[in-house]
Amino acid sequence: MDAHNIKLTLSYDGTGYHGWQRQENGVTIQGVIEEKIRTMTGEPVRLIASGRTDAGVHALNQVCNFITRSPIDPQAIKAGLNSMLPGDIVITGAQYVPMEFHSRYRVKSKLYEYRILNRPDPDVFLRNYTWYIRRPLNRDEMTKSLSVLTGTHDFSSFRSAGSENINPVRTVSRAELYCPDNQIRIIIEADGFLRHMVRNIVGTIVDAGMGRLDANDIKRILEARDRREAGRKAPAQGLFLVSVTY
Amino acid sequence: MDAHNIKLTLSYDGTGYHGWQRQENGVTIQGVIEEKIRTMTGEPVRLIASGRTDAGVHALNQVCNFITRSPIDPQAIKAGLNSMLPGDIVITGAQYVPMEFHSRYRVKSKLYEYRILNRPDPDVFLRNYTWYIRRPLNRDEMTKSLSVLTGTHDFSSFRSAGSENINPVRTVSRAELYCPDNQIRIIIEADGFLRHMVRNIVGTIVDAGMGRLDANDIKRILEARDRREAGRKAPAQGLFLVSVTY
Repeated sequence: MDAHNIKLTLSYDGTGYHGWQRQENGVTIQGVIEEKIRTMTGEPVRLIASGRTDAGVHALNQVCNFITRSPIDPQAIKAGLNSMLPGDIVITGAQYVPMEFHSRYRVKSKLYEYRILNRPDPDVFLRNYTWYIRRPLNRDEMTKSLSVLTGTHDFSSFRSAGSENINPVRTVSRAELYCPDNQIRIIIEADGFLRHMVRNIVGTIVDAGMGRLDANDIKRILEARDRREAGRKAPAQGLFLVSVTY
Repeated sequence: MDAHNIKLTLSYDGTGYHGWQRQENGVTIQGVIEEKIRTMTGEPVRLIASGRTDAGVHALNQVCNFITRSPIDPQAIKAGLNSMLPGDIVITGAQYVPMEFHSRYRVKSKLYEYRILNRPDPDVFLRNYTWYIRRPLNRDEMTKSLSVLTGTHDFSSFRSAGSENINPVRTVSRAELYCPDNQIRIIIEADGFLRHMVRNIVGTIVDAGMGRLDANDIKRILEARDRREAGRKAPAQGLFLVSVTY
């Protein structure tokens, strides 16, 4: 059999996982899916994703691909995986792609959304899907602060330790918020993201929403290129990978 | 100290619990809250709810009350409980009520909502909060079938075994559906509910939505006063206790 390259789109609830990336100890999304593909095809496979997501982070439309010699067609792969996977991972699409397609190298942009529940009482149904902040946040100040981030910048101030050898310059094409009932949702789209970049940005923007910082401070923090200047890191459970563009 | 009667309103995600009612084995919502009240007040208490909910069933606004000699005021009870309770139970209100108030005996009506996700793909974020039905349901037929149920009837056909000595006549004041994005939500309001009544009704209405039954069949089933005539029981995770009226 010839080898095929199969692209999967999927959504997952990251609550119960130690993130995307396969690891020795701890259940990961990559690990669970690779195991089920192996069961279906009889071959060990290696999934390549658009990027890893951290423990507790969710995906509405993650993209990954794998090379297989199995003759099972993509629709059967999708149906078979969905029948075997736990309910917190769902394959939403499967298709053949050219052999040169690579889920990570070919990314043009990724869009993340961060969800904050901002009201007096918490919501039992959103506890794993939002950052609950009781104190009212100033949305205008947050919008102004976000606008400072669009464009091409060195985002070192918003990069967590552990990826220092990677070029820290990224182009943010969208950084805005919208507010469906009692939530503040922050959208950030860029050609790529540094480690914990969205969560570090959101933590800092929330400081602006609390009146501790303003848009000028955000500009200063960005220009400092120093992680110690920015605010705290927002918790994982509010973060969603919304889509990946190739 | 004089005794006080304190009424609580609360919401909970029933996914992790063996239902409302305290039991020897298994974590229950009543059990967890009673334990925290005991920690706060130093007294054993017995919570009286508007009614029990089964394992996996959720509440947006459950109501319960308890008698205490503690001088701690309701707002402090609410804040204290919320700081101690796990994230899947939230007290949304607390107030003194007259000693004769009883959460179960004084109920005038209760409103339940049952949520069905009806689309080709499941949703990872709704798996514990909807009944996922892939096959398209006929919503007009479901609406017609629901309308048969309003009014005062003997609901024996929709009562699960285990409560045979209770008067099976109930008055349903609302039985309707609405459809926010890809969901079918069935609302049923009545002066009281028999065991599994909403889930037995929903299972039967879904049979109508699949073309297996029509409104005339629902009428016949209702008049038969025999549980064996009705359809299957809908799963617990789609059911929400929305509100209780006194």
